[in-house]
Amino acid sequence: MNWTKKDLLGITELSKEEILFVLDTAESFKEISQRDIKKVPTLRGKTVITLFYEPSTRTRTSFEIAAKRLSADTINISASTSSYVKGETLKDTAKNLEAMNPDVTIIRHSMPGAPHMLARILDSSVVNGGDGAHEHPTQALLDAYTIREKKGTIDGLKIVIVGDIIHSRVARSNIFTLRNFDSEIVCCGPPTMLPPHMEELGIKVEYNLKKAIHNADVIMMLRIQKERGGVSYIPSVKEYSAFFGLTGEHIMNAKKDVIIMHPGPMNRGVEIMDDVADGPYSVILEQVENGVAVRMAILYLLLGREK
Amino acid sequence: MNWTKKDLLGITELSKEEILFVLDTAESFKEISQRDIKKVPTLRGKTVITLFYEPSTRTRTSFEIAAKRLSADTINISASTSSYVKGETLKDTAKNLEAMNPDVTIIRHSMPGAPHMLARILDSSVVNGGDGAHEHPTQALLDAYTIREKKGTIDGLKIVIVGDIIHSRVARSNIFTLRNFDSEIVCCGPPTMLPPHMEELGIKVEYNLKKAIHNADVIMMLRIQKERGGVSYIPSVKEYSAFFGLTGEHIMNAKKDVIIMHPGPMNRGVEIMDDVADGPYSVILEQVENGVAVRMAILYLLLGREK
Amino acid sequence: MNWTKKDLLGITELSKEEILFVLDTAESFKEISQRDIKKVPTLRGKTVITLFYEPSTRTRTSFEIAAKRLSADTINISASTSSYVKGETLKDTAKNLEAMNPDVTIIRHSMPGAPHMLARILDSSVVNGGDGAHEHPTQALLDAYTIREKKGTIDGLKIVIVGDIIHSRVARSNIFTLRNFDSEIVCCGPPTMLPPHMEELGIKVEYNLKKAIHNADVIMMLRIQKERGGVSYIPSVKEYSAFFGLTGEHIMNAKKDVIIMHPGPMNRGVEIMDDVADGPYSVILEQVENGVAVRMAILYLLLGREK
Repeated sequence: MNWTKKDLLGITELSKEEILFVLDTAESFKEISQRDIKKVPTLRGKTVITLFYEPSTRTRTSFEIAAKRLSADTINISASTSSYVKGETLKDTAKNLEAMNPDVTIIRHSMPGAPHMLARILDSSVVNGGDGAHEHPTQALLDAYTIREKKGTIDGLKIVIVGDIIHSRVARSNIFTLRNFDSEIVCCGPPTMLPPHMEELGIKVEYNLKKAIHNADVIMMLRIQKERGGVSYIPSVKEYSAFFGLTGEHIMNAKKDVIIMHPGPMNRGVEIMDDVADGPYSVILEQVENGVAVRMAILYLLLGREK
Repeated sequence: MNWTKKDLLGITELSKEEILFVLDTAESFKEISQRDIKKVPTLRGKTVITLFYEPSTRTRTSFEIAAKRLSADTINISASTSSYVKGETLKDTAKNLEAMNPDVTIIRHSMPGAPHMLARILDSSVVNGGDGAHEHPTQALLDAYTIREKKGTIDGLKIVIVGDIIHSRVARSNIFTLRNFDSEIVCCGPPTMLPPHMEELGIKVEYNLKKAIHNADVIMMLRIQKERGGVSYIPSVKEYSAFFGLTGEHIMNAKKDVIIMHPGPMNRGVEIMDDVADGPYSVILEQVENGVAVRMAILYLLLGREK
Repeated sequence: MNWTKKDLLGITELSKEEILFVLDTAESFKEISQRDIKKVPTLRGKTVITLFYEPSTRTRTSFEIAAKRLSADTINISASTSSYVKGETLKDTAKNLEAMNPDVTIIRHSMPGAPHMLARILDSSVVNGGDGAHEHPTQALLDAYTIREKKGTIDGLKIVIVGDIIHSRVARSNIFTLRNFDSEIVCCGPPTMLPPHMEELGIKVEYNLKKAIHNADVIMMLRIQKERGGVSYIPSVKEYSAFFGLTGEHIMNAKKDVIIMHPGPMNRGVEIMDDVADGPYSVILEQVENGVAVRMAILYLLLGREK
């Protein structure tokens, strides 16, 4: 297929074919980061802007490394400390940046829809690096990549997502991705952290962690989003951990070759225990590595699209 | 002509011939940013330092993009958060940076004359990226570039500058630039925001916005510098806006092909209304685009000067 | 010799032969920074991360320039403002970065031993950019480089270190370096700022500055580390300065060709007076210049090591 989309705003805008095309493209880029000379000239002379209104070293670094390994020039704008917050509208900021002829802007913003607004204004590409509790598409794509890499498929699996589903853009983007495939999706967490009507979307809800992960192929743990007020939805972190923190004992209940995922940063001892995080089923660091490959693929596809 | 100056400290130090030479050079660079591969090897192996003691994403980003499109290496130092503020003098900071053999340092500082002090100490080039309420020469050069591009000339025009003239380094540098040409310069604003004795410099003063922009070819709106205490010079922002905020109605009074400029970031609804900012006469985004070209020209001229 | 070490964690881990090998290698790199085109392709396609948990523009800039002149890609992470501080352990941060396949991570951390812990976890190289009051090996290497450059040797000299020895990682790393050579090391400062049992290590202790620098070939002044509580160890900055601030008069007592060193940033008027800092014996800016060369050498040796 040929990639035609200008932007990557959310998984909801991608077809299954497009999702698979991203994963296939990422496969060819993964090897570059393992070379001795980790650089190809593909995006030489392209300008990549990271515009982060929320602090994030992890995602920003992953995009910056992806861009540099493709030989693009990168400009980092941390909007919390920038003049852009001095009363200028996001629209004006965007138009100003556009006037400097960037090729792609990666935006993280606490406001859901901010990347979409940007994309409508700009002729150049926009990537959603996380918008509020809405979407975080590159995280979901790297998660899908990791599942496919480890399981050989994204179909026929039991995939359990555990934690603060309702506040998690990672969970949302993952659910939107996985619904394209023939896998069973189970969401697990305290009732206050699960959105209503999930069953109507074909998603199972289970309040008991042990039951949820029975026979699971994939367990995705979510971070308790303290900074989004997640803690106020549970009696205490200690109690949350007692009921929903993943332990080595839990894993006995899952499939023998289960994989454990986490988008990071982990709250060790809260949602995930050390023996799981560092154990043989954990693919958490593979997720990070795959993140660079998937982001290289996204930059490559958006900037090389058919115009 | 051959460029011989080591530094760009202020417009007052440039001859008319030098100003025009910068504009001519910028013309040849503008096209690079519109290419598919926006990069030329001109300044490969050169080190460009941005040393910003005041927050500014806009200007810093413009310089950084300009440097990278010329293949220079860029180092960003945000002095407000740096160890350089720990009691070290600006002179020592400068000498330390010089010892690392940079080719050019772009400095923004709240103290007028800071770039000049630096330039005397350093053998390498210094560019004034804004010093207090003193000068902001690259802004004035990109404004002149934009006027010439749109009007074909900088002579024979009526150019009106509106707002907080007395606190504005942009206004100062623009006035110094425009005085080299045969245009009528009119400054307009509340009396508390206009410096005395302007008429003696050949500049007209007009307190009524409607009268000021009558028959104008160019209208430059200035930002109300809340962060420099500009607000204390006016009864209220609302009253300022009622008297000096530019509306679509005002523009009827100007020439048919008037252009509206603003150095950004705009306070929409204060000094400029939406219909003007986004209207057909606005060249505000062209200014931003030309800023990259002018800064490429400056870096090119300073680093390629006759020694 | 062939370099075999993966990391540069501290001077204590280096043999005399290795120290000299770094200095010899740095010699060949110094000239690159003095060229018109200050760039060689040596580390093209390598990824260099600076991970600074303490603010430091000076050291970070020096490493970043060193990396860029070798054509490496650089990623700056200022951990104080990053998401890495949101409860994530240093170990997890490190493993996450490692998963993005960097070639070397330069870490500065207030915790002694932080770089050592990182080095044990990571397969890629780690450089200690300063860990608490423990070590700052690249500073000591650039100091040794500067001494050898100016004196032709590091043997047979009288080297005096003055100031807050007990809180200074610079002093520690310098002492560890110099002990490999046949020079007399004298530490001078108020008793509260000198560690006990120094004589047992073959280091002379002298509480009187004038006596200490009698016949000295090299005087290293240390910064009063206000930010590490250094001031609480002395009655007042004024009194400290009266007893241990280096003046032009003091220098009369030293050898005729004495050199004055300071790791910066200087507290002028406290530990060093203007006439000394800017006088003919000062090699303070040469230290900064040599810092880039030494750091280029370190990056080159670590990344090109025998595996």
